[in-house]
Amino acid sequence: MMTFPATASRDHELGLNATRRARALTEPMLRDLVDRLGPSLARIGRYHFGWRAGGSFTGGKAIRPTLALLAAEAVGAVATDALPAAAAAELVHNFSLIHDDIIDNDELRRGQPAVWKEYGVPAAILIGDALHSEAFGILLSGGGPNAAAAAARLAAAMREVVVGQVEDLRFTERPWTGEQAVSIAEYQAMAEAKTGALLAFSASAGALLGGADAAAADCFDRLGRHLGLAFQCTDDVLGIWGDPANTGKPVFGDLREAKRTLPVIAALTAEAPASSRLGALLGRGVRTDSGLRLAAELIEEAGGREFAEREAARQLAGVDDCLASLSMPVEIRASFDALAHSLIGRIK
Amino acid sequence: MMTFPATASRDHELGLNATRRARALTEPMLRDLVDRLGPSLARIGRYHFGWRAGGSFTGGKAIRPTLALLAAEAVGAVATDALPAAAAAELVHNFSLIHDDIIDNDELRRGQPAVWKEYGVPAAILIGDALHSEAFGILLSGGGPNAAAAAARLAAAMREVVVGQVEDLRFTERPWTGEQAVSIAEYQAMAEAKTGALLAFSASAGALLGGADAAAADCFDRLGRHLGLAFQCTDDVLGIWGDPANTGKPVFGDLREAKRTLPVIAALTAEAPASSRLGALLGRGVRTDSGLRLAAELIEEAGGREFAEREAARQLAGVDDCLASLSMPVEIRASFDALAHSLIGRIK
Repeated sequence: MMTFPATASRDHELGLNATRRARALTEPMLRDLVDRLGPSLARIGRYHFGWRAGGSFTGGKAIRPTLALLAAEAVGAVATDALPAAAAAELVHNFSLIHDDIIDNDELRRGQPAVWKEYGVPAAILIGDALHSEAFGILLSGGGPNAAAAAARLAAAMREVVVGQVEDLRFTERPWTGEQAVSIAEYQAMAEAKTGALLAFSASAGALLGGADAAAADCFDRLGRHLGLAFQCTDDVLGIWGDPANTGKPVFGDLREAKRTLPVIAALTAEAPASSRLGALLGRGVRTDSGLRLAAELIEEAGGREFAEREAARQLAGVDDCLASLSMPVEIRASFDALAHSLIGRIK
Repeated sequence: MMTFPATASRDHELGLNATRRARALTEPMLRDLVDRLGPSLARIGRYHFGWRAGGSFTGGKAIRPTLALLAAEAVGAVATDALPAAAAAELVHNFSLIHDDIIDNDELRRGQPAVWKEYGVPAAILIGDALHSEAFGILLSGGGPNAAAAAARLAAAMREVVVGQVEDLRFTERPWTGEQAVSIAEYQAMAEAKTGALLAFSASAGALLGGADAAAADCFDRLGRHLGLAFQCTDDVLGIWGDPANTGKPVFGDLREAKRTLPVIAALTAEAPASSRLGALLGRGVRTDSGLRLAAELIEEAGGREFAEREAARQLAGVDDCLASLSMPVEIRASFDALAHSLIGRIK
């Protein structure tokens, strides 16, 4: 797929339609939930989601709700059956963002001050905690035979997410090179936990609320994990080579923060001449703009960028395999394809 | 009850037995859950619960697990049926403590540095988030017909807890006296949300996992709320007049932190001569030890302490009413009584 422009453009439109619809269906439910938190917390919640007076929804790419709704349709249900799963995924995703911004000391989120920066750390901790509980509340409030199974998957996914975040934090304490350095396998396990588990929940819980059995839900779980890894690979490439005008993040941002990302780890372990130069440079600590530019060049020269892009394509093939193993209406299949390809082809 | 020493001492022993048993039954499940979080988080979790090498369990009074197990027995089940509810209650209680200590900038917890002080704010946020998710996970993992209903009550309780915490934080921004001052009714609503909701969850979820229907669970919910308010009133009295050697908290700690507690609010609204002197003193901001001592004396003179103690007794009568409306084995009833009276008669 995406082999010639006509298909690519149709893909793009299908993907956009699916995410637009997911956002339109999920947002009213999210707004109700946030309003129910009482005036103080609701104000902070609306700020985070970008629902200020007159403002339209600015928050995120709506990948998770889109996955949940498409999964329900894929198993023969109507999209709205999966709305509690879509809302729950969006709630825990945003809870994670709010707490992560405190943890990472990130001052900006979606082009505005992060919640902790605007309202303080205590308020940011509490609104995050509230969204976390609400995710379980909305999943369980709908009742239905599979609601408890979906909620149990959310709990398991959140354990993975938190453990993945802890791993990610601890990676920066380790050396860039040598036996103690972060391996590609360790990186993949972290990325699957941190990013894949929640996409896996979104897809599998959507299928469950659509009436799927555990085996079909497991298949959607795998699809979500592949998609998460493809997404993370692309994110890592954008984190170094993305245009700040598109990503909204500083140039060479991940390198500046010494993040262990796939292109860097792959470049360091490539045993190319550029690998050892890169190791020595990173070992000294890169601070200047020229140092960061050199690091990015060495990563590319050692094949780190290509490795990450190839890995994204490989994970996308995994998504395709999952989709091929499921029988579903052709237009739903096309929307899944479009969503997956839009994530890897994105520029922000 | 507790009218003559023989009963009081029997009460005390029954209460101790019930909490000891709850702790012994719940702790292995909690330890397993914490260990499953992976080495980094498990280490922090064990530290918080006081399970370091060779150390015995130091964590808390085990009121919540005790309530859960007794409620299951009260409805004719065996205590272990309610273990997931007992563990879930203990997990969210501890998650709240860990996040609260960051929010309140409290450096000590159970006689040792709080988690954020020992491991940093990021780690404290993440271990709290992990315990929060695990609470839902353990409740839902048991399966059973009422697991989803119990988990839905947990989500509702956590919303109340967070909203109560936000209210409590905002109270300190308001004046001590005048139209904008915190009223007794506002205080009670905050305390019911912040403290009562989780005890209500513990009791009602224990009953649900024991096979109770929603109406019986609602009755245990009310019992938990009365108990929570009785507990909070006693806490407020101890927060001003408790012996630091017993409470482990600084003398006049709540006054030093300008907390709006029931004795203070009641004293300020009593329209006694001491009320206006107290209002003027607090309005100026009390910092010195002699100022704090004077404030405590004025609160007592204006009837604030007596009001809080009477209110604790009134809430305890509410607990008794709930118990009287439920039919249960006489020894379970006696254990509930003992637990309730030990909470109001406690010195720490």
